[in-house]
Amino acid sequence: VRAVTFQAPGEIRVDERPEPELLAPDDAIVQVEATGVCGSDLHIYHGRVKIEPGFVIGHEFVGDVIAAGDAVTKVDVGDRVLGCFHTACGSCFFCMRGIYQKCDEARVFGHGATLGSLSGAQAEQVLVPRANLTLRRVPDGMSDDAALFAGDVMGTGYHAIVSADARPGDAIVVLGLGPVGLCAVQAARACGAARVIGVDSVPERLETARAFGAEAVHLSEEDPRAAVKAATAGRGADVVVDAVGHPDALDMACRMARKAGTVSAVGVYAERCEVHMGVVWIKALTLRTGHANVIAHVDPVLAMMEAGLLDPTPLVSRHMKLDEAPEAYEAYANREALKIVMAP
Amino acid sequence: VRAVTFQAPGEIRVDERPEPELLAPDDAIVQVEATGVCGSDLHIYHGRVKIEPGFVIGHEFVGDVIAAGDAVTKVDVGDRVLGCFHTACGSCFFCMRGIYQKCDEARVFGHGATLGSLSGAQAEQVLVPRANLTLRRVPDGMSDDAALFAGDVMGTGYHAIVSADARPGDAIVVLGLGPVGLCAVQAARACGAARVIGVDSVPERLETARAFGAEAVHLSEEDPRAAVKAATAGRGADVVVDAVGHPDALDMACRMARKAGTVSAVGVYAERCEVHMGVVWIKALTLRTGHANVIAHVDPVLAMMEAGLLDPTPLVSRHMKLDEAPEAYEAYANREALKIVMAP
Amino acid sequence: VRAVTFQAPGEIRVDERPEPELLAPDDAIVQVEATGVCGSDLHIYHGRVKIEPGFVIGHEFVGDVIAAGDAVTKVDVGDRVLGCFHTACGSCFFCMRGIYQKCDEARVFGHGATLGSLSGAQAEQVLVPRANLTLRRVPDGMSDDAALFAGDVMGTGYHAIVSADARPGDAIVVLGLGPVGLCAVQAARACGAARVIGVDSVPERLETARAFGAEAVHLSEEDPRAAVKAATAGRGADVVVDAVGHPDALDMACRMARKAGTVSAVGVYAERCEVHMGVVWIKALTLRTGHANVIAHVDPVLAMMEAGLLDPTPLVSRHMKLDEAPEAYEAYANREALKIVMAP
Amino acid sequence: VRAVTFQAPGEIRVDERPEPELLAPDDAIVQVEATGVCGSDLHIYHGRVKIEPGFVIGHEFVGDVIAAGDAVTKVDVGDRVLGCFHTACGSCFFCMRGIYQKCDEARVFGHGATLGSLSGAQAEQVLVPRANLTLRRVPDGMSDDAALFAGDVMGTGYHAIVSADARPGDAIVVLGLGPVGLCAVQAARACGAARVIGVDSVPERLETARAFGAEAVHLSEEDPRAAVKAATAGRGADVVVDAVGHPDALDMACRMARKAGTVSAVGVYAERCEVHMGVVWIKALTLRTGHANVIAHVDPVLAMMEAGLLDPTPLVSRHMKLDEAPEAYEAYANREALKIVMAP
Repeated sequence: VRAVTFQAPGEIRVDERPEPELLAPDDAIVQVEATGVCGSDLHIYHGRVKIEPGFVIGHEFVGDVIAAGDAVTKVDVGDRVLGCFHTACGSCFFCMRGIYQKCDEARVFGHGATLGSLSGAQAEQVLVPRANLTLRRVPDGMSDDAALFAGDVMGTGYHAIVSADARPGDAIVVLGLGPVGLCAVQAARACGAARVIGVDSVPERLETARAFGAEAVHLSEEDPRAAVKAATAGRGADVVVDAVGHPDALDMACRMARKAGTVSAVGVYAERCEVHMGVVWIKALTLRTGHANVIAHVDPVLAMMEAGLLDPTPLVSRHMKLDEAPEAYEAYANREALKIVMAP
Repeated sequence: VRAVTFQAPGEIRVDERPEPELLAPDDAIVQVEATGVCGSDLHIYHGRVKIEPGFVIGHEFVGDVIAAGDAVTKVDVGDRVLGCFHTACGSCFFCMRGIYQKCDEARVFGHGATLGSLSGAQAEQVLVPRANLTLRRVPDGMSDDAALFAGDVMGTGYHAIVSADARPGDAIVVLGLGPVGLCAVQAARACGAARVIGVDSVPERLETARAFGAEAVHLSEEDPRAAVKAATAGRGADVVVDAVGHPDALDMACRMARKAGTVSAVGVYAERCEVHMGVVWIKALTLRTGHANVIAHVDPVLAMMEAGLLDPTPLVSRHMKLDEAPEAYEAYANREALKIVMAP
Repeated sequence: VRAVTFQAPGEIRVDERPEPELLAPDDAIVQVEATGVCGSDLHIYHGRVKIEPGFVIGHEFVGDVIAAGDAVTKVDVGDRVLGCFHTACGSCFFCMRGIYQKCDEARVFGHGATLGSLSGAQAEQVLVPRANLTLRRVPDGMSDDAALFAGDVMGTGYHAIVSADARPGDAIVVLGLGPVGLCAVQAARACGAARVIGVDSVPERLETARAFGAEAVHLSEEDPRAAVKAATAGRGADVVVDAVGHPDALDMACRMARKAGTVSAVGVYAERCEVHMGVVWIKALTLRTGHANVIAHVDPVLAMMEAGLLDPTPLVSRHMKLDEAPEAYEAYANREALKIVMAP
Repeated sequence: VRAVTFQAPGEIRVDERPEPELLAPDDAIVQVEATGVCGSDLHIYHGRVKIEPGFVIGHEFVGDVIAAGDAVTKVDVGDRVLGCFHTACGSCFFCMRGIYQKCDEARVFGHGATLGSLSGAQAEQVLVPRANLTLRRVPDGMSDDAALFAGDVMGTGYHAIVSADARPGDAIVVLGLGPVGLCAVQAARACGAARVIGVDSVPERLETARAFGAEAVHLSEEDPRAAVKAATAGRGADVVVDAVGHPDALDMACRMARKAGTVSAVGVYAERCEVHMGVVWIKALTLRTGHANVIAHVDPVLAMMEAGLLDPTPLVSRHMKLDEAPEAYEAYANREALKIVMAP
């Protein structure tokens, strides 16, 4: 089968790989029909996240189940399914508490040996372990473009809001209006936020946030902190989502949150960074961090997408062929597209 | 000042009463501009809830602050305000846990001596004790008709959902589509319910529920339990709101809820009733009951109304003069109107 | 292997059965060293719960793993283990929300065809499906008598408290001081309840409750409602555990709870019963019901037992041989023992 | 009345001040019988927290109500009472959500103009605004030494645990075993923590922690991180309380917490500090910060103290006279005492 492989920083190649085979009774194999390029893939592409040369990448996929082990009960061969970006065992300390994203045996598709040696989904076929937890049927009438988001980007936007203890009627700020931030805007609104304020410096993204129901504020040409104050009677936001992953964003988030508010950091952090703990502490902030728990969220997210409360399709700005992966990565790296969907 | 008084079951009269005076530093006096007739008023009108003849009734109001004690800090003389249906002390065991509706010193407007001897709001002026907790400014641009709901009926609809631990993506059933049930439909949707199913036997109410985003099912001409099963893959609803207050509704709610689901009984119960505890127990249901905590909810409810996520104005089906109160009660008792708003 | 079988109401027999065999990769086989007789077994014994004649009964066990499938990762052959009273799949709608007790594929040991046809644990060997979720290693130094409780009776006592949203400092009443009620007394105390009031009519049980830190009140010779009032400044209890499962207990529980309190009904209900919904509603009570979620609780319960915060061993009042099962059931039915542990 | 005043860094003087007078209907005046010296007082003493020369300091007190306004309903003249360290209005945005410590009108006793110009409690008499929220009756039989802690240090220890979403059965680490840390050890144990590990470098403090049920680990002579691993099957602690307030403690806390664990920072932070956000984020930690919500906690804390579940009296290491305040501060600054109680 044809598959997108990492070769070296900046170098992606479409190679031939052997067909996957079922190894465990709860494995399934999916014939991929659509697969997305995501911000995490870009970390690999740029060499910031290191994986083995030749490893098949990609972790967003929709397709048809073409084989399934005896213990796979939630989907059947022939079903149109979508996948979550990682697997989970279902019985470790963390899974038993519903914290699937920190499963002791979690494996992430397309992220090399350090994250479980699980071959990626930017391929004609993908082997899916723990299929009962990781796969879901695509609801009737839902497009591949939409379904692709449920187990990754939209699940992360939803997580940013619900893991932050947001309540209906809240004022929520979203810093960074890439795909995750824009999904967080939608999720905030769909979960009852009365005010949603999106901050970015790209006019198109601000425009999209506005179309999703947010007040959009330009990071540098306007005054985001003043805008938050104005929207909250001077109090600050109940929840601030940091969908950027940069010390400046974290600092801004802490300053925009109200006393006893929550900063929900879904943007990725990998380094040390200076935090103004004096501000955090005197305001009694709560900081929530880490990967989204998409396996826990995928059912409600799909239900809300089916109901039209969430709709990521406007984020898909380009469709390409799997064989065009090198061009797709280059375009994505150049920020020429918000989300690229490839079809094998 | 002119005021609507209860005289005897079925007999309402508009009488003259002395102007209210400030008695405590946190009292305010409101010049009433709009006051609603509510289902609870009907209990008094029918004599099911007993109060003293001559007592001024009514508990929904919007108007202007014309006097305020020194300790009133949240509203000023001249402000357009709305009231909650009761007062709370802010410092008893229950208030300190945010359970304002069960305040040890709670007083309900217009409900006679048993509920605190607090003269009602269907009058030209009303004395409002504990004004800091009970009054809120009407947001700019919000109509009196809308504001009237925030501290009573919409607060109750919101309570039905949030006190039931509903989560975004849930399937929620609302039994009984009177004003409270219809507000619960809106609140369910606004809080992220993916499926909302409204059940009643009045076609106009079903129509309104449909306009608010619910699937509407006729109680007897259709099969509500089958409809719930069909909408939930056979599982039952995550939350069932009983906005009726009748043993048949409670029984139906318990049968419609999924395993480990919640029945949220906002409909009023006053009697013994037979419950199929075998069904409740084997399904591991949670039952939530009681008056809504409108004081706790009034700020988020107003914020959501201001944002357009909640909008009770379609429920106001008739405007009348305060002097027409006897006719208003008769019409309401005859179910000729969903909500009547009277202006002094 | 020798096994305790139900023959007819009141008739229990020890029979020979074939050795169990592994059927699925996550099955294990346990050589039973200790097995308890529980109140639920008595329902079968008395014919109130109907199962097939000849079915092997019992659902509490401690023993050694003598065989395990490839997918069993949490215990090894040779480990001393304890079991939970039922199995769960780990991936259905309910398991994914951590509601293991309502798993769509749950099977209860020793409860016949209606609860999953899973042969019981009062036998020399028992087959344990879904071993990763259902079995746990016995911590070093913990006796079989103690470990036996972790996956059933103590898990239920713990559930009664934690599922009731009890908070440290609460006043908690436990109605019914059988094994579950006494474990609830311990759990209440260990979770920080400032006042624990146990109610029963058996002097020995009251004595044990007192030894566990409760104020013990005789059901009929004293005035339990007055005692609760006296202990709570007249307010009523924050949480009332109904460990009886009888309409009178439920009614008493509702009357003893404070406004906005919780009644936690862990006692089994199977029938219709009359509830004073007027009392429930005006007090705004929450009612929690159903089987305990022992699979979710078994790890914290074991940790607390290991730490000495929970200790069920005083409840074991008699040790017998598996071959004496008929006598054991007769003694238990005659209330001659609080808990009987049998050794094969 | 005689009162302890701040004069300059390192200089404390006992001065004469006018008797306080009631200013508002919910004011009370307390004749102080015991008042504590606390770590926060030391910040003032050292000049790190700046207040006006001559300001009366102190915020922990027990005494008798000698005057009370008309609106004071929860205590009466003649009652023995204890105070919380600050006041709250009961009706602002934050109070209505139960977040009393961030009340928009909060005033802290003895902290100068920046925290509300509220004269301190290290005096013969103290004026207590908002007495209904801030004062509580001392339960019968409770010593002044014990009661003194309920509204400050023990409330903070309790807050460290309950605001961290700790659950019965958890493993909890407490970094820093001063009075707050030692109270957190007690609270952790009383709330059901199965393992409590205390870390400090002062042998006496380690000894006290051990007496309170903790495993005590020396910060530098032992290996605290290894000890936590050993106690948690290598997983890390469910909750780590940072009762130090120093970047090194925060870093250690983040490293000791398990995946998806909580770091509860009750130690005071006032500056920027470098945090390893890579560690925080990949572990998906939650960080809780800020002052304790002692007004919300004072009732359960008193109930648990009355029940013997919490007992701060071993922390009182010295009693002195109010007139000896200069010596008391000097001794406390020299760490010669864990807690000093002064009597006027």
